[in-house]
Amino acid sequence: MSNTASLPLLETDEAAPCCPPLTSAPLSEEDSVRMAAMFKALADPVRLRLFSRVASHEGGEACVCDIQDVGVSQPTVSHHLKKLREAGLLTSERRGTWVYYRVAPSVLAGMAGLLTAAGR
Amino acid sequence: MSNTASLPLLETDEAAPCCPPLTSAPLSEEDSVRMAAMFKALADPVRLRLFSRVASHEGGEACVCDIQDVGVSQPTVSHHLKKLREAGLLTSERRGTWVYYRVAPSVLAGMAGLLTAAGR
Repeated sequence: MSNTASLPLLETDEAAPCCPPLTSAPLSEEDSVRMAAMFKALADPVRLRLFSRVASHEGGEACVCDIQDVGVSQPTVSHHLKKLREAGLLTSERRGTWVYYRVAPSVLAGMAGLLTAAGR
Repeated sequence: MSNTASLPLLETDEAAPCCPPLTSAPLSEEDSVRMAAMFKALADPVRLRLFSRVASHEGGEACVCDIQDVGVSQPTVSHHLKKLREAGLLTSERRGTWVYYRVAPSVLAGMAGLLTAAGR
């Protein structure tokens, strides 16, 4: 048992897990500021579509080149991807010519958990 | 069996369920507009706290009088509750002196479903 303590936990190191479901306890002021910022990142249709394109892409990862045909200019795509990264919803990595984006899994799980009806 | 057909289905008549998980398929333009509006409703810390107070209140229902001490004025509380109602996240009903708010369950489930990682 004790030798598992030093193993890094996958999918939990990108963001601290947040908050019990909204249906189980009122959100604290601090948590509400944090979670509202994440919801804000998804509160734009183009941003939400870009996010869904990354999330649903093969292997959960996408190059800008794979996802940019959402009907807005390339600078606008870059701007939205930056917002998603700043909100902690996407991580990015440059490999060669392209930047690859990946959904931060623990953040998505945290948001889903918040919205899940707890035993109702 | 057949006599249950005429019973109204609770929790499914407030909004059509929306969209597969973001991780399973890219969101359509139409769905992205609809879902972004819901996320926008939760993209404000005070609104999110009000929503969590209704959601976590006994019986999933709360009177304005139960939830209004979030550190903003009563007109501001009313404004935020109106926004949540307009976004389809809360339903309201006047009974006597007070208006009672209730979380629209299918909407909450729809948002949680959207954010759930599909088999990843």
